[in-house]
Amino acid sequence: ASPEKPSDAKRPRLSRYEQRAELCQHPVAKQLFTIMAAKQTNLAVSADLASCQQVLELADKVGPYICLLKTHIDILEDFSAEFVTLLTALASKHNFLIFEDRKFADIGNTVKHQYGSGLYKIADWAHITNAHAVPGAGVVQGLKEVGGAKGRACLLIGQMSSAGNLATGEYTQSTVKMAEDNADFVIGFICTSALSSDPKFIHMTPGVKLAEGTDALGQQYLTPEKVIAKQGSDIIIVGRGIYQAADPVAAAKAYQEAGYAAYMSLES
Amino acid sequence: ASPEKPSDAKRPRLSRYEQRAELCQHPVAKQLFTIMAAKQTNLAVSADLASCQQVLELADKVGPYICLLKTHIDILEDFSAEFVTLLTALASKHNFLIFEDRKFADIGNTVKHQYGSGLYKIADWAHITNAHAVPGAGVVQGLKEVGGAKGRACLLIGQMSSAGNLATGEYTQSTVKMAEDNADFVIGFICTSALSSDPKFIHMTPGVKLAEGTDALGQQYLTPEKVIAKQGSDIIIVGRGIYQAADPVAAAKAYQEAGYAAYMSLES
Repeated sequence: ASPEKPSDAKRPRLSRYEQRAELCQHPVAKQLFTIMAAKQTNLAVSADLASCQQVLELADKVGPYICLLKTHIDILEDFSAEFVTLLTALASKHNFLIFEDRKFADIGNTVKHQYGSGLYKIADWAHITNAHAVPGAGVVQGLKEVGGAKGRACLLIGQMSSAGNLATGEYTQSTVKMAEDNADFVIGFICTSALSSDPKFIHMTPGVKLAEGTDALGQQYLTPEKVIAKQGSDIIIVGRGIYQAADPVAAAKAYQEAGYAAYMSLES
Repeated sequence: ASPEKPSDAKRPRLSRYEQRAELCQHPVAKQLFTIMAAKQTNLAVSADLASCQQVLELADKVGPYICLLKTHIDILEDFSAEFVTLLTALASKHNFLIFEDRKFADIGNTVKHQYGSGLYKIADWAHITNAHAVPGAGVVQGLKEVGGAKGRACLLIGQMSSAGNLATGEYTQSTVKMAEDNADFVIGFICTSALSSDPKFIHMTPGVKLAEGTDALGQQYLTPEKVIAKQGSDIIIVGRGIYQAADPVAAAKAYQEAGYAAYMSLES
């Protein structure tokens, strides 16, 4: 899954979260590393649930264990502006950031409108969103025109966790270049393994479960230990492993501990 | 823009729209070619406007000249279920299909929910939607699980019109293979030039204006003549050239005539 970084050996830790927070220029990256240090967590929970109430309940329950809540706002059957207010209040209460996993992937003029307006007004409430690099640099420039002034940040999708995905080789390298060229707005990557040794870039890895495996539609799971300690990523994104668990709080705690233990196992 | 098909020479027409309709197995592809033959048009209009009323007014005005109306449902400030009912009625009145340009780009399990549910329920009203190939075949399989039974169809984005885009070379070839492997649901491509000689695949090209040029965020425009007669595409997608025109009806008529003249200039 990671032809660019084939080594499976343990990597040295780039530096402690506190140091990373100091090294980052972007306020959102700084804030995220500060939260990770304060709460001793590198866990992001993906709240892929169909109702606002379900997402809010999950966020309130797992809030103490996470640095980031990842949303797919467009799968909510009953989205409302009130939901955004309540979710934002939970983010303050539990000290986590909100990441709308929109995967913007259109030309600059279109993503500007998709990000800033419509029913969802993503730029008004999501600290972080993300984009595919396939449209070229215009996608980042368009998003930045909207999110930059609001102090928002973006991740680029450098690698994916799904079988047969095309985010490999030169595609991944072009994505890293695009991030470097737009580091005033792009704070890191969605990836399966570290793509940059620059400590200001945050690496987040989806498709994480305590046991490896696949789903019926090509998702390929890795463990927290593998993602953090072997592949050099910074944040584990866990969805079904938590929200489908019999006890989501116990599951979140287990993932938080596994992810943090993997981080602590790295040589600093 | 088209390293796979570098020739700029005029190509022979694959066959007449009537014949293409007969060759297609998918009902949506068949219907689209039938409309193109009956209305003598290969024009799709991109209705990138912020209010439902604006989109409905544009659709009613340009309806006689188009085979397809392309929407970005998530830029509408006042989306409602009633809008879908009214737009669907206009599609019947003027005999065009609706194409939601969602550019799905996530893993199969996620796009299933984004396509079938949420506020927009895209699969319930969009005859056609589209997807990026970057997540691997799971994206098509997930969409097909929802749209297949509803008789919907999908396009894959094989090339883009924006500067520095990464949909080139092997990426494009993998996209074509993904379409061929899923031809019961994928009816063609978003591209700048023909990617397949199989007459059942429809090629649609965005970024079309009567004069070539660029916008401030990397969009690169081609003319109807170039797209249809030289690059071998089937449908021109025109946005700002029509909805920003002083007289959108006159503009739609001009693009319809230019696109159809280019088609008629091909040897059959």
